[in-house]
Amino acid sequence: MSKFFSEKYSNLEAYTPGEQPKDMKYIKLNTNESPFPPSASVVEAAREEAKRLMLYSDPECTLLVDKAAELFGIEKNEILFTNGSDEILNFAFMAFCDENHPIVFPDITYGFYPVFAELNHIPYEQIPVKEDFSIDYRDYIGINKNVVIANPNAPTSLAMPLWQIEEIVSSNPDNIVIIDEAYVDFGAESALPLVKKYDNLIVTQTFSKSRSLAGARLGFGISNKELIADMNTIKYSTNPYNVNRMTMSAGYSALCDNDYYMNNCQEIIKNREYTVERLKALGFDVLESKANFVFAKSDKISGEELYLKLKEKGVLIRHFTKERIKEYNRITIGTMEQMEIFIKTTEEILKERAK
Amino acid sequence: MSKFFSEKYSNLEAYTPGEQPKDMKYIKLNTNESPFPPSASVVEAAREEAKRLMLYSDPECTLLVDKAAELFGIEKNEILFTNGSDEILNFAFMAFCDENHPIVFPDITYGFYPVFAELNHIPYEQIPVKEDFSIDYRDYIGINKNVVIANPNAPTSLAMPLWQIEEIVSSNPDNIVIIDEAYVDFGAESALPLVKKYDNLIVTQTFSKSRSLAGARLGFGISNKELIADMNTIKYSTNPYNVNRMTMSAGYSALCDNDYYMNNCQEIIKNREYTVERLKALGFDVLESKANFVFAKSDKISGEELYLKLKEKGVLIRHFTKERIKEYNRITIGTMEQMEIFIKTTEEILKERAK
Repeated sequence: MSKFFSEKYSNLEAYTPGEQPKDMKYIKLNTNESPFPPSASVVEAAREEAKRLMLYSDPECTLLVDKAAELFGIEKNEILFTNGSDEILNFAFMAFCDENHPIVFPDITYGFYPVFAELNHIPYEQIPVKEDFSIDYRDYIGINKNVVIANPNAPTSLAMPLWQIEEIVSSNPDNIVIIDEAYVDFGAESALPLVKKYDNLIVTQTFSKSRSLAGARLGFGISNKELIADMNTIKYSTNPYNVNRMTMSAGYSALCDNDYYMNNCQEIIKNREYTVERLKALGFDVLESKANFVFAKSDKISGEELYLKLKEKGVLIRHFTKERIKEYNRITIGTMEQMEIFIKTTEEILKERAK
Repeated sequence: MSKFFSEKYSNLEAYTPGEQPKDMKYIKLNTNESPFPPSASVVEAAREEAKRLMLYSDPECTLLVDKAAELFGIEKNEILFTNGSDEILNFAFMAFCDENHPIVFPDITYGFYPVFAELNHIPYEQIPVKEDFSIDYRDYIGINKNVVIANPNAPTSLAMPLWQIEEIVSSNPDNIVIIDEAYVDFGAESALPLVKKYDNLIVTQTFSKSRSLAGARLGFGISNKELIADMNTIKYSTNPYNVNRMTMSAGYSALCDNDYYMNNCQEIIKNREYTVERLKALGFDVLESKANFVFAKSDKISGEELYLKLKEKGVLIRHFTKERIKEYNRITIGTMEQMEIFIKTTEEILKERAK
């Protein structure tokens, strides 16, 4: 820290993204990316748009907004696109939380929420998830604070039913509820239908998981037009051209190829169910996943040891050091081929250990 | 503004980007873009990278950092890439300014500085430029506040000599000096050589103007490794994957094709000198530009009228309503063909008016 760094950030601990080691080629099951490449039209769209890069991108993202409004059945002023969904989440924290408007979220969830809170000097409270890692919706009823919940939650993979989300939203009418649906396309119920019913709900989604565009950085928020307008004020005060031309065009093509991506999600769900079955057969405790990853532990090997041994053998999964979850690992669901290698390697490790 | 919008932003007035009307095809001389397309290898790089979009981008921007370090003769930990240079400017405001560390800048300059200050609740002072719109460096000597100066300045196009910049940096050792060099490649002296000499200097640049990548969103800051580390803390607390894969790859190719872009700058300088000469022949008062735009006014027609009449005839230039500069317009330098049309159309307007 330099002597010039503002004291207001002296306690700020930045987010740590998943490791991206460059020492060898890994089977990457550690950052919840899609194993499927973007559709051919996305690649072509990026190339076509690259020819026009000397011109600024459209700050209103008109092309994307029009297509998304059609696909999601919303008005054009009810959506805001951002440079990944981390950006829309930060905009929401900035716009609606402050010293007098704290935010609450589960103790086990996306690691960026406390960082956004610290960054923006927002008081926050972490509510423990239950013993089985599920979120007790009753903890959030009438809590009279802003709320952010990832549904499905990460890294637990568990989803809440829509009626519980609705109870939280309807019981906190004077506060904002953000539902982070990064993983919603893998089997959970989306809260999008509630946006028209409540004026305090923001749903965020991303193109990084189900739409194979993690490297393009595209996320969005859907809400009523007033909250979208407020978040636009933040956008136009930080980075009006936040979405670049190539990403805008790639995102548009991805929305046009919706079937391709939704079929990939079905494929991943199938691979997930297979992986869960195989892990359970190996004695693993696996949470009921509605995401493109599973969260699992074994009594036969510690979370850290399994993670390290898999890494040695060229398979990357995500390990967390937080006390409550340190025996678990988060394993991204890839292709059937990748999952076979992961299972086979895990089997080997357990056998070697049993010797 | 919704009832949920945080009161801390109640006075925030967002930045207004240059207009991008879609009603007809214009000769666009209003947002300081390059008239030259990106090089062929940039387009190809974007396409190749689009095939890998399912994977997150490298948060460390290794490829870009290595190439830029080589080109600029700096260490790899002395540079930070961002989603356009607006982002690095915001990071610098966030990291080094706060209620006890105000910032000063000229009254006539890039319109985003007061927005960043308001957004981050940083007290700021705007120091009037001189009658001739030049910045009096003596106003900033030992001012004991953080300083941001665009050099060349926008929209005036005027540049300060390096020795004046150095006086400002060296006389404020307990404060940060940010030199925003968005337009430096069109004839001004860069402050980059001073970075090794002073521990309080940040130089920001962009790929939007001289490198034909406005639509890709790529900017960067160069400073000593301590200040870069602090700004990285901000980056990793907002958006670790802030630069997408396609932009990273396009930017890398653009650095490899440095000669192409630097030749384009020479072309623009030539077109600028021609445009200045023609405008002066028409009786315009034109400031001495070191940028890819000129700032000009005429006694024969108001700034607003010229802007509106040019727009009617399909030529877009940038008009500002601020009192001190409302008789001027900012005209981006395009190809020789575009400048001929601009001059011819301006001539017509003046003739029609004289009737």
